[in-house]
Amino acid sequence: MRRPVEKASYMITLLSDFGLQDAYVAVMRGVIASIAPGKPTCDLTHQIPPQDILAARFNLMMAYPHFPEGTVHLAVVDPGVGSNRRAIALQYPNGFLVGPDNGLLGDLFAAHLAPSITAVSLTNAQYWRVNRPSHTFHGRDIFAPAAAHLANGVPITALGDRIDLDTLVQPNLPPFRLVNSQSTAQRSRQYAGSLQYIDRFGNLISNIPGQAVSGQSWQVELKTAHRRIDFTGVKTYADVPIGSLCAVIGGHGWLEIACNCGSAAKALEGMAEVGTLLSLTFCD
Amino acid sequence: MRRPVEKASYMITLLSDFGLQDAYVAVMRGVIASIAPGKPTCDLTHQIPPQDILAARFNLMMAYPHFPEGTVHLAVVDPGVGSNRRAIALQYPNGFLVGPDNGLLGDLFAAHLAPSITAVSLTNAQYWRVNRPSHTFHGRDIFAPAAAHLANGVPITALGDRIDLDTLVQPNLPPFRLVNSQSTAQRSRQYAGSLQYIDRFGNLISNIPGQAVSGQSWQVELKTAHRRIDFTGVKTYADVPIGSLCAVIGGHGWLEIACNCGSAAKALEGMAEVGTLLSLTFCD
Amino acid sequence: MRRPVEKASYMITLLSDFGLQDAYVAVMRGVIASIAPGKPTCDLTHQIPPQDILAARFNLMMAYPHFPEGTVHLAVVDPGVGSNRRAIALQYPNGFLVGPDNGLLGDLFAAHLAPSITAVSLTNAQYWRVNRPSHTFHGRDIFAPAAAHLANGVPITALGDRIDLDTLVQPNLPPFRLVNSQSTAQRSRQYAGSLQYIDRFGNLISNIPGQAVSGQSWQVELKTAHRRIDFTGVKTYADVPIGSLCAVIGGHGWLEIACNCGSAAKALEGMAEVGTLLSLTFCD
Repeated sequence: MRRPVEKASYMITLLSDFGLQDAYVAVMRGVIASIAPGKPTCDLTHQIPPQDILAARFNLMMAYPHFPEGTVHLAVVDPGVGSNRRAIALQYPNGFLVGPDNGLLGDLFAAHLAPSITAVSLTNAQYWRVNRPSHTFHGRDIFAPAAAHLANGVPITALGDRIDLDTLVQPNLPPFRLVNSQSTAQRSRQYAGSLQYIDRFGNLISNIPGQAVSGQSWQVELKTAHRRIDFTGVKTYADVPIGSLCAVIGGHGWLEIACNCGSAAKALEGMAEVGTLLSLTFCD
Repeated sequence: MRRPVEKASYMITLLSDFGLQDAYVAVMRGVIASIAPGKPTCDLTHQIPPQDILAARFNLMMAYPHFPEGTVHLAVVDPGVGSNRRAIALQYPNGFLVGPDNGLLGDLFAAHLAPSITAVSLTNAQYWRVNRPSHTFHGRDIFAPAAAHLANGVPITALGDRIDLDTLVQPNLPPFRLVNSQSTAQRSRQYAGSLQYIDRFGNLISNIPGQAVSGQSWQVELKTAHRRIDFTGVKTYADVPIGSLCAVIGGHGWLEIACNCGSAAKALEGMAEVGTLLSLTFCD
Repeated sequence: MRRPVEKASYMITLLSDFGLQDAYVAVMRGVIASIAPGKPTCDLTHQIPPQDILAARFNLMMAYPHFPEGTVHLAVVDPGVGSNRRAIALQYPNGFLVGPDNGLLGDLFAAHLAPSITAVSLTNAQYWRVNRPSHTFHGRDIFAPAAAHLANGVPITALGDRIDLDTLVQPNLPPFRLVNSQSTAQRSRQYAGSLQYIDRFGNLISNIPGQAVSGQSWQVELKTAHRRIDFTGVKTYADVPIGSLCAVIGGHGWLEIACNCGSAAKALEGMAEVGTLLSLTFCD
């Protein structure tokens, strides 16, 4: 069922919160190039705010499905480095994910996909860079080597003990879900979700998938401690006046609150942050 | 006349205003890697100020001639995404350019080079990522796929309808030109131009090519609404005292106003910006 | 004795203070791709503070040993461009280093390694990009071409005249050294050194190697003009309360002053900078 992966298509992507000022990312690239010479690499981003697991998760989730079959995705945002958090790798039908088990990788695959996923804990020191990894730089000593060995075709089960997908740490984010409605009428369907990312354009991106909307007339309510604010769902930013806020399905596929030619994050400063609750309702 | 392009030399460069914080650039790279696996890519810059077409044009113009034959240059600074602005690609003797038709690519080739250029509008949906592109992310859905297909050897004319080079949108910048002088004497030649870019060192880079100077004694006048300021032309920064302003031919080949060990942009804050008029005159 | 270098393992790394906003780095990459098509490249960092030779030296020193045999490391932080500072290249058993002779490369190899190092001044104009290099952009005109030719297998001695390793300009940094103690007892050993880098996490990284510590009970004294401050040596950040300062051996292998869950640079603002003196003493 799984299509064979051609070795030639293997590449490795990198995501971290190391920034681009210091050469820490380059150290990981050097380790990868030493183990898997010639494998192409690609940065997802290294400007995740320090230790921001949710920002890392969103950017990984947005980018990884676009890469070719067999790609290995290495994600190192690791506030728990040196503690007993697990270092893990996942194989899914189209590729591999490697990183700490801290919520970053916990909900990328729905439970019903579990049979197609192999998850391991990176416990086999034979595939580490050194026998005694540093307390502070597992990116270099454990994660980058694991990604490079996977790119070389080492079976994932060689890297450590199998673990169950449902034991993965989940991200600390109110989930998207269907709210049970009092009536069974289509118009009374209601979804709940939360803001999962604020991009550099100031778009407030929710975890409500665009498919939940499907062409009907809809609106979104943002729920803060002190206020509730409604936004009308539109097709594109340009459907509202310049400087006005609206709810749209963004190019990434999620419902977002945006500002036509402006920053929704700035307009709603102090009222909206990652984790803020949202509800989606239909007007007809 | 056109030298044959060896497929092995194909590579793809990327320029955008997406920044490096979010993984939007990585999404384009993933699309490219999926269509044209193994083709090397290279960032020109992704830190173009949001929607700054002139900054994008300058950086592209400075960098693309240095790349090997057959390189595909993808440039996405696209304030008009979702409007009816054209998406275009150009083939010139040494490579390809792909981007929106908004001034970014409009004046890279002089009119007399038109016979050696093939320009198309990217209208053939067969070479898009999806049949119904997003309203907000043509970089992913139209431009990156076009660049990848060109790198694969797809003929440019397959990507859409041919268009005339002289229909391209021109950049919004006062052009470089020879000003007709009252006398025919060499010494009374005068050129007009404007500032086209301010780099991170604070150099004010004009669109007057260094060749216009050719070793004579010269000076540059900056013309703002309220003032005119003269700068003496010198060979290198070090020809003026530390902290002093001067006019030099920069390493990029254009005439620039610079400050020895300082920032000309800061010294002239409020008086000089992209588009500010300049004239070049000769003293003997 | 030197293992043969397989051409296939050659790659080129780049370090500079050009930043990522302008396409200056891309120009160097274009030059490299034109001379050495298909050779993989890797950024170390381009966000070295402008003209900060010591920051460049530290990041290079931290990263280059992790790259595979045959890698060419190109480092361009070059405040003396256009002056008579030498442009140099070094071959060491595992690879090559290329850059200005301004302290950046001066102390990467101890004197006793000199017999295994070949150093040249890049005087052979045949391997420059153009016969008359720009006064301001030797990265493009001299250094990048040299790196690309080395990656192509051109012998280093073809690039220019041999020079002695001990003529290289040394970095402007108080060196690490054993301080002669009055007594011969192990416990009275004392090392002197200085801060060599402050990373973006605010860690104050010294030039005292972790091996100098070797498991004993130790402390570090920071010596400013007006104060002396002691830090107890610990195994990991977590050995001190949150927000407390300590001395540890960092993941990079050097002794550093750090703050558990905070920035030591901020806590010691105005008291510690690159070059500030340190001493390491043992308590038993």
